[in-house]
Amino acid sequence: MAAEATPSFLFLPELPGPGSRLELPLTESHYVARVCRARPGEHVEATDGRGALAVLRLTRVRGGVAAEVVSITRQEPGRGAWVLCGPPEGERADWLVEKLGELGILRFVPVDCDRAAWKRARGRRGRWGRLAVAALRQSRRLQLMALDEPIRLEQALADLPAEATLWLADASGAAPAREPSGAASLAVGLVGPAGGLTDRERDLALRKGFRPVCLSDARLRTETAALAWGAWWSGARG
Amino acid sequence: MAAEATPSFLFLPELPGPGSRLELPLTESHYVARVCRARPGEHVEATDGRGALAVLRLTRVRGGVAAEVVSITRQEPGRGAWVLCGPPEGERADWLVEKLGELGILRFVPVDCDRAAWKRARGRRGRWGRLAVAALRQSRRLQLMALDEPIRLEQALADLPAEATLWLADASGAAPAREPSGAASLAVGLVGPAGGLTDRERDLALRKGFRPVCLSDARLRTETAALAWGAWWSGARG
Repeated sequence: MAAEATPSFLFLPELPGPGSRLELPLTESHYVARVCRARPGEHVEATDGRGALAVLRLTRVRGGVAAEVVSITRQEPGRGAWVLCGPPEGERADWLVEKLGELGILRFVPVDCDRAAWKRARGRRGRWGRLAVAALRQSRRLQLMALDEPIRLEQALADLPAEATLWLADASGAAPAREPSGAASLAVGLVGPAGGLTDRERDLALRKGFRPVCLSDARLRTETAALAWGAWWSGARG
Repeated sequence: MAAEATPSFLFLPELPGPGSRLELPLTESHYVARVCRARPGEHVEATDGRGALAVLRLTRVRGGVAAEVVSITRQEPGRGAWVLCGPPEGERADWLVEKLGELGILRFVPVDCDRAAWKRARGRRGRWGRLAVAALRQSRRLQLMALDEPIRLEQALADLPAEATLWLADASGAAPAREPSGAASLAVGLVGPAGGLTDRERDLALRKGFRPVCLSDARLRTETAALAWGAWWSGARG
């Protein structure tokens, strides 16, 4: 939900311990000085994208921003979600990455499928990374979404943690009436590419334990199905 | 969900009765002849975007496509949803329109709010209309999403049907654990602009009967909140 004010929230992957002083990287300096127009002595929040929430006190703003780490707290690991996704059409994955980041998905796994492979993923990683950071800032999240290299579907399925609950976006499934992850800490959503999974791939997922879930009463594009699953998981907490 | 095959599905707002013959408009002719590579004698489906599902038999494909209406059935009006939405940042409304169309939202109402008005909506209507038609085709829906002119929030709230169930995307709300529309036929989701609703606007919505619903455990951008609400409604059917 949009907030009325937007206090500073920084992404600092190299966050030092409490009491340390640091120079902010260029992008964060610009953000603090120009976008937020912060002043020396003000406090801002920051995360390392790995669960830390730090309070910083700005010690200098002009000519590069410097700050002192006042405190750091760590978020307990809670429920999480991964999205395994075949390639959508065109550039549609860009905003999918942004939106999944906002919704709090922990890991985005581009899966190469029989009908389509991720040709564009390698060239988009820089852009995806920036979109994921922007989503983390926007939603003030403490976990940066991980962006995997494309991987064959078979391999992705073989690598899944045994305790995860598994969901396949599939028209034959039931409506998502209940909490998708239940008590489990990790939920995994799998969405086929624009041309759909082959029967072989679908059978593989079902044998692996994926439960079909029908996210709408009509056919959705790949990226829309991935986003609908992410929104469902994100809204279905506790 | 992505389908394995993509049979033709046409949008024909001027759909004549069974037994009639018609020349397809240019865009639909191109789609049938070039994209689907259909042949004379083949059957295709079409909708008027107002609940009709027609079966057409192609009588000519070269030099413009001609067809005969074989049959028409009408969809019973069922549950529906409107999205009232303040302006997001930049061009982000474009893909919101596309995604809400895929999810089956019946009406998109851009609302002008205290903190932001829809400056771009008028110039985008042509593009939004094309995106809504593409979404209808993609999802093979029989109802084309209506795209309203921007309207003041107060007016939009005053115009709502009395029987609608009303939902406000708001961080103070409960998680969307239950079916949003219940037995009601119309559900309305309201999402504030990028800067948020003012207290005055929020109070107005709550007095009108909007129930706060918290769609994620963190702050979402305007368009992400609108889409998350739409995905929730679309998935929560029966």
